[in-house]
Amino acid sequence: MLPDSLKQIALFLERLPGIGGKTANRLALYLLRMPESDLKEFGKQIAQLKEKTKRCSVCMNLSEKDICAICDDVRRDRSIITIVESPLDLLSFEKGNIYNGMYHVLHGRIDPLNNIGPDDIFIASLLKRIDEECKKDSQQLKEIILATNPDMEGEATAMFIRKRLDEVKKETGASFVITRLAYGLPMGASVEYADYGTLSKAIENRRAF
Amino acid sequence: MLPDSLKQIALFLERLPGIGGKTANRLALYLLRMPESDLKEFGKQIAQLKEKTKRCSVCMNLSEKDICAICDDVRRDRSIITIVESPLDLLSFEKGNIYNGMYHVLHGRIDPLNNIGPDDIFIASLLKRIDEECKKDSQQLKEIILATNPDMEGEATAMFIRKRLDEVKKETGASFVITRLAYGLPMGASVEYADYGTLSKAIENRRAF
Repeated sequence: MLPDSLKQIALFLERLPGIGGKTANRLALYLLRMPESDLKEFGKQIAQLKEKTKRCSVCMNLSEKDICAICDDVRRDRSIITIVESPLDLLSFEKGNIYNGMYHVLHGRIDPLNNIGPDDIFIASLLKRIDEECKKDSQQLKEIILATNPDMEGEATAMFIRKRLDEVKKETGASFVITRLAYGLPMGASVEYADYGTLSKAIENRRAF
Repeated sequence: MLPDSLKQIALFLERLPGIGGKTANRLALYLLRMPESDLKEFGKQIAQLKEKTKRCSVCMNLSEKDICAICDDVRRDRSIITIVESPLDLLSFEKGNIYNGMYHVLHGRIDPLNNIGPDDIFIASLLKRIDEECKKDSQQLKEIILATNPDMEGEATAMFIRKRLDEVKKETGASFVITRLAYGLPMGASVEYADYGTLSKAIENRRAF
């Protein structure tokens, strides 16, 4: 018995992940109480979202311009490239202010169960980019960090990319190293509650102290 | 490092109840993957939401027309009016298919701690409606069900309205009864885990069996 104007909005919101029918109704009702100018502005932004948002032609991160702010920033260290699965992963690194190198965004991971193969994510563009950079100057690139998620699909994706990068290294005579993010106990965690996989990695990768 | 087009959308979504920063980013990214035509349509609906959505002039429920579908439905029982706090409460009754009478939507409840008094919700329009109906035909209206929430504010709102309705009854000589939703154990609940308030109401209102 909600009017159509609200029902349509609730039905759309229900399609978003993590939003069920009741929440969608509540959100639609909440929207109705927001200032009209804000709603008009938001409506415009939503309608223009796909036109305005492209992928950076270098690193594939989302960007309004042809080259994203990171790739365009001369202060960043071009000798390291970190490979992430999604723009949100990149965002986590950037928020931490712990990294000043470049990125490459795969927009997914190899996931055969969901029919996502190497050609469905941006691996080809990564290899082309590395190949071109190394052919131009085989010494500029020092390191590639594989920062896919520490789960089965992320692991398989990292392994697939490492093999391909080894081929590029051989072909171009480049000498960059390929690394993977460290595995172990997350900060603040307790040994008691750590799962088996994490704990076994934490022992395997223990360090001199 | 998300492009502005996405960031603006995420910032808007973050203003909605129950949506934090990370969720807002994830939703914005999800929107980007939806079909462009759907986004354009949704954007239009959002922009038009406030223009299109009015309140029914009889029961104050949200409606695209001047009189809502329920008030306009001749098959509904005009001798009972249920008073609810919000359109979502009305929706719960309608979904259940347990009620065929009319409604009145208060759009809030008396809540002094949040500076919401009787004049801030649709009590005056309710009293005017009842008054007019009873003056036209003092026998048509048989029952008014107070279906505000069973908490402190809902209770206070119900009590306030009951007093006013008693005045209307006296003035117009109408004979409708005023009732309140039953309190007790919710179906499927266990006595063991019922809170004190619920259990004491369940004993107080016990019935012959």
